[in-house]
Amino acid sequence: MTVLYKADPVRGAIWAERFAQLAPDTPFRVWPDIGDPAAVRYLIAWQPDDLAITLPNLEVVFSVGAGVDQLDLARIPAHLPVVRMIEPGIVEGMVEYVTEAVLAIHRDLFDYALQQQARVWKPMPLRPAAARRVGVLGLGMLGTAVPERLRLFGFACAGWSRSPRAIPGVECFAGEGALDAFLARTDVLICLLPLTDATRGLLDRRIFAMLPRGASLVHVGRGPQLVTADLLDALNRGQIHSAVIDVTDPEPLPADHPLWGQPRVRITPHIASATRADTAVDVVLENLRRHRAGEPMIGEIDRARGY
Amino acid sequence: MTVLYKADPVRGAIWAERFAQLAPDTPFRVWPDIGDPAAVRYLIAWQPDDLAITLPNLEVVFSVGAGVDQLDLARIPAHLPVVRMIEPGIVEGMVEYVTEAVLAIHRDLFDYALQQQARVWKPMPLRPAAARRVGVLGLGMLGTAVPERLRLFGFACAGWSRSPRAIPGVECFAGEGALDAFLARTDVLICLLPLTDATRGLLDRRIFAMLPRGASLVHVGRGPQLVTADLLDALNRGQIHSAVIDVTDPEPLPADHPLWGQPRVRITPHIASATRADTAVDVVLENLRRHRAGEPMIGEIDRARGY
Repeated sequence: MTVLYKADPVRGAIWAERFAQLAPDTPFRVWPDIGDPAAVRYLIAWQPDDLAITLPNLEVVFSVGAGVDQLDLARIPAHLPVVRMIEPGIVEGMVEYVTEAVLAIHRDLFDYALQQQARVWKPMPLRPAAARRVGVLGLGMLGTAVPERLRLFGFACAGWSRSPRAIPGVECFAGEGALDAFLARTDVLICLLPLTDATRGLLDRRIFAMLPRGASLVHVGRGPQLVTADLLDALNRGQIHSAVIDVTDPEPLPADHPLWGQPRVRITPHIASATRADTAVDVVLENLRRHRAGEPMIGEIDRARGY
Repeated sequence: MTVLYKADPVRGAIWAERFAQLAPDTPFRVWPDIGDPAAVRYLIAWQPDDLAITLPNLEVVFSVGAGVDQLDLARIPAHLPVVRMIEPGIVEGMVEYVTEAVLAIHRDLFDYALQQQARVWKPMPLRPAAARRVGVLGLGMLGTAVPERLRLFGFACAGWSRSPRAIPGVECFAGEGALDAFLARTDVLICLLPLTDATRGLLDRRIFAMLPRGASLVHVGRGPQLVTADLLDALNRGQIHSAVIDVTDPEPLPADHPLWGQPRVRITPHIASATRADTAVDVVLENLRRHRAGEPMIGEIDRARGY
């Protein structure tokens, strides 16, 4: 019944401590100290490499992150369920990050920062939040939590997802056919899509052209979804006014990359949200219980769809 | 029954339009077009100069702002009630501004901005909001609304006021004797005090020394409350980590002022919050009704206390 952890070892020590407290009867090991391979039933990993193939009695693969795009699903046998991390720590971090980004854009803080550099004191007109249209691409767990918080500030919130969703107070668009209408009404576009073949390179010149002139982007999905050259061009032309970018391609972003030096682009090093050991262990233990009881696990992905 | 407006003329035109819609029977004039001085009963002003003395039948002076410190109360006859602006537009603007500032500090965005300038990709550990202690100086209308919103993010919120208050979910401290205990538990200090003789120069080296090392300041009160030299010194020594400053002394801040160039100080030109004509006119009309009915007006100040 061993649980094997293969990810950041510093965090692994925190996981081990919390497992020992909450589930002292469940052996917890941190890779490479795997013990008897035949005893490992559960693997918690960022990148499992070939462990899912070589561990003979493995029953479940858990991702330590909210996404599973870092996993090579071809190297995980088809009979094994794959579970992504759905825990309140990830949600809260993302809600904090995106709320800050939307408020910073709404209150013209990129322009005030440039005025500060020039030592210029010049107030700009203040728009009410109700006149600022926020749109979220991707209405999963994070994409639902974000507009629910932004609504409290009075922003006009909408969301787009591949399949139809309903979120109280959020105008929901669904499917390829509704994407242009969603973009046309969006002043601040937030990308919270999973990385799949369908979303790779999605944020390109066509998408930027559909937004109202002077719109802003908050990119907290995955780096390869953004065509950086198209964003730089849209910024230069004023089609996009400002961008908050937490994910890049590649990561880390090389020091000579042109995104670093853009005046109205904020770069952060993929820190919008991170799994928190305390809340994550709670969810994993709940999922172990569900798995043993034959119940569906929280965050189990559709392997055909890839998320 | 004339209402006379003496403040920004561009906003005055919006006020006039809204008055004409909602109270077509109440004559509304924008200074200097005052008409018959004897007809003016109500004055809405930023700085009335000597109007309150020279208008013979004046009954009430309204400030267009949330504070009254810009008024020279000695030039307003003692029998006239003075009313400050309490309206939802001011509250919402302040809640937006302070929420953004606290989230930016909480999520280390000052440090990430410096890393971006140096083209460095280096994640820092993420602290849960519950471990971040926010403290609000001044628990008036704005000082109450701010922690009510911040609580939704899980921040540990406290407030200090001269006289005792009770706000659900906010640890309330009252009186001079409790100030040091309040400061000692505060990682992010938000100043929302009115400007009075008691608060002039309050934010000085003694206050900064009482905060935990590495605390941050969000100053949205009034410029003369801050001893700038003491803040610069506290920043240099690392006692204060970062500051968000919306009010300065003087305003506008001169181009050669040292605050502009501080790496972990954000300056904005007194834009945290502004009276919104639409919601402000609603409140003034309600106050005119109350005044005629002999009821207490919303925002009437205690002239002895000065706020």
